[in-house]
Amino acid sequence: MGPVTTSASTPAAKAAPAKAAPARAVEQVAANAEHHTTEATASVAGVREATSHAVPVVIPAPVPQKAPHAPIGRIPVIEVSPVVEGGRWTAKAAVGEVVPIEATVFRVGHDAVSATAVLVRPDGTVHSTSPMQDIRPGLDRFQGFLQPDAEGDWSFRVEAWSDPYATWVHDATIKFAAGIDQDLMLAEGALLFERIAAPEAQAARTPEDAAIVARAAAELADTSRPGHARLAMATTHAVQDALRRNPLRDLVSPSATYPLRVHRRLALFGSWYEIFPRSEGAVRHEDGTWSSGTLRTATQRLPRIAEMGFDVIYLTPISPIGTQFRKGRNNTLEAQPGDPGSPYAIGAPEGGHDAIHPELGTEEDFAFFVAQAQENGMEVALDLALQCSPDHPWVEQHPEWFRTRADGSIAYAENPPKKYQDIYPLHFDNDPSGLREAVLEVVLTWIRRGVTLFRVDNPHTKPLDFWEWLLADVHAQHPDVIFLSEAFTKPAMMQTLARIGFHQSYTYFTWRNHKDEILEYFQEVSGPQGSVMRPSFWPTTHDILPPYLQHGGVAGFAVRAVLAATGSPTWGIYTGYELVENVPRPGVEEQIDNEKYEYKARTWEHADEIGIALLLERLNEIRRGHPALQQLRNLTVHASENPNVLAYSRRIRAEHLATARPDGAAPVAGEAADVILVVVNLDPWGGQESTLDLDLAGLGLTSPDGDGSAPFFHVRDLLTGETYAWGRRPWVRLEPHRQVAHVLQVTRG
Amino acid sequence: MGPVTTSASTPAAKAAPAKAAPARAVEQVAANAEHHTTEATASVAGVREATSHAVPVVIPAPVPQKAPHAPIGRIPVIEVSPVVEGGRWTAKAAVGEVVPIEATVFRVGHDAVSATAVLVRPDGTVHSTSPMQDIRPGLDRFQGFLQPDAEGDWSFRVEAWSDPYATWVHDATIKFAAGIDQDLMLAEGALLFERIAAPEAQAARTPEDAAIVARAAAELADTSRPGHARLAMATTHAVQDALRRNPLRDLVSPSATYPLRVHRRLALFGSWYEIFPRSEGAVRHEDGTWSSGTLRTATQRLPRIAEMGFDVIYLTPISPIGTQFRKGRNNTLEAQPGDPGSPYAIGAPEGGHDAIHPELGTEEDFAFFVAQAQENGMEVALDLALQCSPDHPWVEQHPEWFRTRADGSIAYAENPPKKYQDIYPLHFDNDPSGLREAVLEVVLTWIRRGVTLFRVDNPHTKPLDFWEWLLADVHAQHPDVIFLSEAFTKPAMMQTLARIGFHQSYTYFTWRNHKDEILEYFQEVSGPQGSVMRPSFWPTTHDILPPYLQHGGVAGFAVRAVLAATGSPTWGIYTGYELVENVPRPGVEEQIDNEKYEYKARTWEHADEIGIALLLERLNEIRRGHPALQQLRNLTVHASENPNVLAYSRRIRAEHLATARPDGAAPVAGEAADVILVVVNLDPWGGQESTLDLDLAGLGLTSPDGDGSAPFFHVRDLLTGETYAWGRRPWVRLEPHRQVAHVLQVTRG
Repeated sequence: MGPVTTSASTPAAKAAPAKAAPARAVEQVAANAEHHTTEATASVAGVREATSHAVPVVIPAPVPQKAPHAPIGRIPVIEVSPVVEGGRWTAKAAVGEVVPIEATVFRVGHDAVSATAVLVRPDGTVHSTSPMQDIRPGLDRFQGFLQPDAEGDWSFRVEAWSDPYATWVHDATIKFAAGIDQDLMLAEGALLFERIAAPEAQAARTPEDAAIVARAAAELADTSRPGHARLAMATTHAVQDALRRNPLRDLVSPSATYPLRVHRRLALFGSWYEIFPRSEGAVRHEDGTWSSGTLRTATQRLPRIAEMGFDVIYLTPISPIGTQFRKGRNNTLEAQPGDPGSPYAIGAPEGGHDAIHPELGTEEDFAFFVAQAQENGMEVALDLALQCSPDHPWVEQHPEWFRTRADGSIAYAENPPKKYQDIYPLHFDNDPSGLREAVLEVVLTWIRRGVTLFRVDNPHTKPLDFWEWLLADVHAQHPDVIFLSEAFTKPAMMQTLARIGFHQSYTYFTWRNHKDEILEYFQEVSGPQGSVMRPSFWPTTHDILPPYLQHGGVAGFAVRAVLAATGSPTWGIYTGYELVENVPRPGVEEQIDNEKYEYKARTWEHADEIGIALLLERLNEIRRGHPALQQLRNLTVHASENPNVLAYSRRIRAEHLATARPDGAAPVAGEAADVILVVVNLDPWGGQESTLDLDLAGLGLTSPDGDGSAPFFHVRDLLTGETYAWGRRPWVRLEPHRQVAHVLQVTRG
Repeated sequence: MGPVTTSASTPAAKAAPAKAAPARAVEQVAANAEHHTTEATASVAGVREATSHAVPVVIPAPVPQKAPHAPIGRIPVIEVSPVVEGGRWTAKAAVGEVVPIEATVFRVGHDAVSATAVLVRPDGTVHSTSPMQDIRPGLDRFQGFLQPDAEGDWSFRVEAWSDPYATWVHDATIKFAAGIDQDLMLAEGALLFERIAAPEAQAARTPEDAAIVARAAAELADTSRPGHARLAMATTHAVQDALRRNPLRDLVSPSATYPLRVHRRLALFGSWYEIFPRSEGAVRHEDGTWSSGTLRTATQRLPRIAEMGFDVIYLTPISPIGTQFRKGRNNTLEAQPGDPGSPYAIGAPEGGHDAIHPELGTEEDFAFFVAQAQENGMEVALDLALQCSPDHPWVEQHPEWFRTRADGSIAYAENPPKKYQDIYPLHFDNDPSGLREAVLEVVLTWIRRGVTLFRVDNPHTKPLDFWEWLLADVHAQHPDVIFLSEAFTKPAMMQTLARIGFHQSYTYFTWRNHKDEILEYFQEVSGPQGSVMRPSFWPTTHDILPPYLQHGGVAGFAVRAVLAATGSPTWGIYTGYELVENVPRPGVEEQIDNEKYEYKARTWEHADEIGIALLLERLNEIRRGHPALQQLRNLTVHASENPNVLAYSRRIRAEHLATARPDGAAPVAGEAADVILVVVNLDPWGGQESTLDLDLAGLGLTSPDGDGSAPFFHVRDLLTGETYAWGRRPWVRLEPHRQVAHVLQVTRG
């Protein structure tokens, strides 16, 4: 029996667009058909009905295609990283980010091989690294680092090449030691140096290097000298260093060139602070009724948030809230009079997603809020929650943007048998173009009003082809605007949202509590995945109060803040964290008296007694002062004996410091790499001690020869100012009531 | 400091082709330049000097390119397998091979999602699988199987789709149980069945399925019946099965289409037997001198080799052998008079790679050998060893095909300080086109003479771009010709040789001796890698006698034969294995008195006493009779307690049997899957016993529902004919002097 022919798709292929098709959909069918002329069956995917109601649906199907055949090079370069599905999607970087580039490079025979990572600017000019390092000897895996210094669509490749000088040094040294072929090797060397010291090659060197090379060439050619001396002069460290900087490269074999989209720095490094603006300035009257806070009263909190060092003020939705099926306090089904409703139930007669809730203010008030945020050095992020309350204007204006049930009613959200009657999900398959344009206009409206970042609510419940289109369109017009994906869901979905254009993503950080799972996850998000899905670490959100924080008290809140602030270059705090709001609604991992359903007037003076606000401020200050903490792909995990004590570090090399810094300031004289070592006691209730076994190479404390240098070095605790002289195996003890963690700057001393 | 601009490449880019450039090289430069007009810097790679002697060298550099952007589909399909670097190279299959296709498929919301693997024939027509299975729930990984039935350049894709029927069944069942929305769900179902039972959809079903669906539609629409009954009629197993065979598919979202090159069956499944033809019929005279065997005398061995069930007779090189620096017996540097030399030192005044050694015979004798092999049902494989003795005609005719040293001499092979003066390596960088054409002509010459397979000696010491070009050219003219790569080297090189076109590869099998490493390696070669690098398992070769076989006696040879014959669909035996030739040259993992350097007249009558010949014959017979052993990507490993006892199985499903069989014979009535379970005692000196813990799903013995069925089943030992009734945890004992392994056919009983 051969492969079975499935004819299931035939009927759909034959089906003409149904008679009710709007003109736009028909045009789309035609456009799709054009794409599919090369393959007989592909157009099947172009026309589909998505509901059971014979509403014609047009799916913009991907054009089947594959990577074009790229012949193997003279020196093979394969498995280049970071590359997403052969370059189908672009890897990400930020201005100043140090991006590890890896490739498998190998060659026939015994001659020396090397590789260079090449960064291609948007204008086509190139920058190369010094030769990449073979990081897994025997497996031919090379690594180098690229660091773009401006936004835009960059690309990169890896060039493999033969290193005739290294080959000659190797062979000549061995043969001289064995006493064979000495004259021949000198003659070969002299011919080689004719090329190494050719005028064009010399012109590319510094005068010092050129002089070193010229002298070596002359000495090697001087037949009046003893052979050993001639060899020695051509193989000094100085000559080898000069030729490492400007090597003679034969048989240069480039990989394919892969895309690298470079975003602004805030896409990688930033501190977010979330508020419900209606709570900021809300007042509870003596009769129990409330006056809502407003955009104007909320501005009064901005100076303190800025003082704590935050870069982004993130607002939950500020649009009008529906009244039909409005939820009451603590997610009850019946709202009481005066309950403000969930800001995620968007839409009322006053307007939809592009409107501002009248209780919060006007467009002018929003402009004032944005200006005040800017005055305080912060940008404004807004929630983008693409669903509607039953009162949303779109429900009447565009019923085709919702799903209609067999009884003619519009479908509310369900997860049978559960019903969520306060929410009408948008249905993207009836009129995808119309709905897309409407959402784009909502986004552009807020951008015009000064929003520069969007926190996207549940993006995984909307089609990914919609997001890919929307993000590409916004990026083309406003490349500075950043989208944070709130997709707490399965890995494939989260990863794919990142691939198709989201700049950042919430992560599983909130649910990683134990040492091994924390370290494993930190390594995962800081590895190759970090060039696609940038993590944003949040200890809590308005939806999530994890068990560790329900039970860990103030120390627990401190622990999670340290982990978030140093585990990822972008982190976020939901307001009230300073007050250790750790009481859950029974049976739910969510705060009781949740701000989603009511006003919340907080007593901020308590925060200073608790100390968490001070910790947040200190952490943000350390993050701003240390470029190592502004990078993602630079993590090293260190061993420790105690399962409650964990250690990790971040390091940035000296040569990357200037570009990494927003101000481009060069390292001060003698400044070496920036290295931060974090040691955390995960036990919020008791002191824990441990011996650490530090990875000195990860801390940059061994010489390249791995000679185990630096038996002692200095660490300074940036939280307390204390300093220690440490060796490879220091002993630490952390008492939760005093200090939950060390955040140490490491220097060679 | 920003990225550093490296100007090292500038001089080479400016360098004009050196004056000595032959016209062909200059043309090549021009051709390369054309390819590189799109990127300013790429042409650097086009012109390079490869030696220190200013001989111009032209590298056909790969054109930098990336996979075109393919938008995400309405239902995302990512990480399709088998795909090599985004489709840069083609995955491989053989006629009748069952290829597992995997993809990550997911969707927004709670609706049911499914996927179909689609095989595209060379003519563009398609075959689909039944819906793929979700094999890693929670990770959204789907798997299906495709089975091409003819040679050629096929391709495949994965189509994800929404399953509105499954969604409706799920929701309606829950809602009926909860007593809500019953009428609504029936109404939604009736609308759905209008589409399911539409004339076009029904036309694609078998009459039985169409009748089932039509009846369900009618019952569901019959409002005179109770609601529960209407739902029940529309969700019977019969309806669900019919709609699994021909589902209603909404939102069909195809992946990219990826290449799949389908070779003839022998590329996947075959048994090879290696001989030195000069040994076959060689005679040692009383005075100690020898008469060489010839191609004619070698034919006398063919019937016995064929009788043992081998498909391929592989000849070490048969070209003239050089005399300068000829190696003597046991690899001594000085040959004695009468020493025949290594057939790998190719070339003498009598001719080079396309010539036949006069002592072996003439072209007519070779034709006779080929005809006799065919008469015995075997094809002829020839060694392709691309290096030259100092006497090779090319040395004088084409000194540019070798490396010239500074003293003007031609470079012999070296690994400093070691010298191999009997071998001149070919140098591919001076005149790549000329040398390529010459090697192609050698290969085509042997193909014209009847060779259909090449065992390529040390391909990893020649440039990979050369092989990619050669293999593509030969494939275009002779798609039946198979190349086996003898690259015992690092993984990246072995993998890449497979990617660029080698049909098969020798492997690390020879050095995998312990249980865990054997099972791990078997899984590795049978996994996704198996769609690119097809393994050929050899217990020994003329170069390799591993320690296990030096010390394991007859039982050791039996163990390795069983492992090779069942661990890979292609395996090979080097002649003399039947005689347990297990004495090494001291200090070397190679046979003493190695046939490479001398004639070897064997006493074949001993073979029957030893029993290995009989085992080889039986193993090949079992392999031919059992399609499960003719497949690669179908391995399951089973647990066993004893570290000396290992177990694995291979299974092919019933629906794949007919296409898997060369004769296309349909399964006999009631024939189920073909399942072979191998249990081996690795201890060649003592009996070992163990309880096994069998993976019943891997043996196809559980129902799809995983209900743990088949507590007992039948196994029949194909080596002894004994049968047993086994359960999930059978006990086995294997005595090396009686039987080193079970090769069991598993049936449900």
